[in-house]
Amino acid sequence: MEQPKNAASLADLGEFGLIDRIAGQTQTHNQSTIRGIGDDAAVICAGGRHQVVTTDLLLEGIHFDLTYCPLKHLGYKAVAVNLSDVYAMNARPRQITVSIGVSAKFTLKAIDELYEGIRLACERYGADLVGGDTSTSLTGLTISITAIGEAEPDRIVYRNGARPNDIICVSGDLGAAYMGLQLLEREKRVLKGNAFERPAFDGYDYILERQLKPEPRADVIDFLEKIDVRPTAMMDVSDGLSSELLHICHSSGLGCRVYEEKIPIDHVTRNMADEINFNPVVAALNGGEDYELLFTIAQADYQKFQSIPGPNIYAIGYMTEADKGCRLITQGGSEADLVAQGWKAFAQ
Amino acid sequence: MEQPKNAASLADLGEFGLIDRIAGQTQTHNQSTIRGIGDDAAVICAGGRHQVVTTDLLLEGIHFDLTYCPLKHLGYKAVAVNLSDVYAMNARPRQITVSIGVSAKFTLKAIDELYEGIRLACERYGADLVGGDTSTSLTGLTISITAIGEAEPDRIVYRNGARPNDIICVSGDLGAAYMGLQLLEREKRVLKGNAFERPAFDGYDYILERQLKPEPRADVIDFLEKIDVRPTAMMDVSDGLSSELLHICHSSGLGCRVYEEKIPIDHVTRNMADEINFNPVVAALNGGEDYELLFTIAQADYQKFQSIPGPNIYAIGYMTEADKGCRLITQGGSEADLVAQGWKAFAQ
Repeated sequence: MEQPKNAASLADLGEFGLIDRIAGQTQTHNQSTIRGIGDDAAVICAGGRHQVVTTDLLLEGIHFDLTYCPLKHLGYKAVAVNLSDVYAMNARPRQITVSIGVSAKFTLKAIDELYEGIRLACERYGADLVGGDTSTSLTGLTISITAIGEAEPDRIVYRNGARPNDIICVSGDLGAAYMGLQLLEREKRVLKGNAFERPAFDGYDYILERQLKPEPRADVIDFLEKIDVRPTAMMDVSDGLSSELLHICHSSGLGCRVYEEKIPIDHVTRNMADEINFNPVVAALNGGEDYELLFTIAQADYQKFQSIPGPNIYAIGYMTEADKGCRLITQGGSEADLVAQGWKAFAQ
Repeated sequence: MEQPKNAASLADLGEFGLIDRIAGQTQTHNQSTIRGIGDDAAVICAGGRHQVVTTDLLLEGIHFDLTYCPLKHLGYKAVAVNLSDVYAMNARPRQITVSIGVSAKFTLKAIDELYEGIRLACERYGADLVGGDTSTSLTGLTISITAIGEAEPDRIVYRNGARPNDIICVSGDLGAAYMGLQLLEREKRVLKGNAFERPAFDGYDYILERQLKPEPRADVIDFLEKIDVRPTAMMDVSDGLSSELLHICHSSGLGCRVYEEKIPIDHVTRNMADEINFNPVVAALNGGEDYELLFTIAQADYQKFQSIPGPNIYAIGYMTEADKGCRLITQGGSEADLVAQGWKAFAQ
């Protein structure tokens, strides 16, 4: 990927630029290393099967706010987002390690709550907690999780396998987690200094749940296996639809067309967006943290989704040759370039 | 392991207490999970071979001080300490993931230096950097590394396999890294406000190197294979000899006798200890960060160490039945209980 050769700062480069830079400077040598940096997970040959390995670092004040995120939910979510990366490789989670750094403000009860959430997610998705590290920290809470999954070698799905005319699918509605975050942030501002007032969350359970307790789409991976569909490319939606689609397009050397009207958005997401005068489509395109699966399939496979009952899968567009660009077709029929306005980690 | 049932705080429990607590509340279910929490690494069945998985979280201000730790060295050390855990399982490293959280104070050049050290360690020890995560942080630098290694199933060595009368061996001198840290801390205090003065490091290269750029003992693992010795139990010395020995004794359900006079201590370590009126044996017992291998072998295997040239291996004592306790035999011939005064992460 192109990168500013003489970027003076991390802010110039951005998170993806930094990852590209690290990847470009890194070679792999071991026979067992099938895929290194650059997908949802690395892939390792383990006997007759393949393993996927993915890791996430969660820092207090950056990725979560303990003002409104209960520790049990945080533990659950920390595991869930890692397992989502495992499923995004069309693999199934087997083991995780959890490292935590905690400052003196945390009680033992708080740590127990965190691990309760971690274990709950492990049990629900069949992963074993097998190790980790514990440390004090000077400030706040640090959580680092590594997840290991498993799949038959010919089932692994990378970002780079999409072909022209493949149908772009997404496994559920988008933008809800971002709207949930906006609601939580608003109530935090409103309630500052008014500890006795109850937050105005009525009717917004859905978007709060999407923000605080996302579920990785294990059911979609099971369904794809059952109907014998192997996506040509797949990612999970963590940074927003635009960002992920651009990754698939770039990795596959293709362009795409996405129809604004086909992007699934829940009515609660729309209600919240209306309330704060925010375009819900922007939330879907750039909000992130939806942890839905975004994948491309051959056109011939599309009818199989109707063959047996299963989770709703939404067709939102199709892949094109690269020279057609990556474009959104608006409800008015005009076209706009897809732009990744997702999480610019170092630009703040 | 016993633990305070109603521990009110993390400080009461301590790091090892917390790990025991987490382990006690955690079950594993997957067939591929051979060993979970409680050794230097978890063990996973991967086809005909076993994988070991270990992870470490390094936080600025807790585990390292950028005042005197160059970023390239830090990157190297962060990998080295993880690989040391892989070797401590009698396995060989294959892949690592590296996650970093960096605050705005870090330049791109600084990150490049950090990864230069990371790659150098990877190359030297044959590990591939296959993934990770990058994030901003509010304060300081966070590094989380997970290392994956590989071994034949019957070569893996746990902490719990020692038998009575096994010889306790250590692969090199102890206490040097701790004395190196004391030197660095002293010079930091001395130089505060005197930026033009050069630190007084002359003659102390060895202990500085042991602190800033430890090397995991790959050569010892190669040697053990060559002379066909499989230790009955093994750990790496990260928290200090006492702490690690007590882990082996506890896991194996045994006691031990260690001879003070047999504990290898380098003369530079002794010089520094003399200079600051510190008992070098205490540094060896409790200093930590030596990253030597501590292992037990059957008496019959001991003569094999002399069969071909190889790294120095020091016999420092022997294992006993549990009721004999874990004791140090001092140079004067008296006995003292071994006490783990190693890193009490949460007690500060």
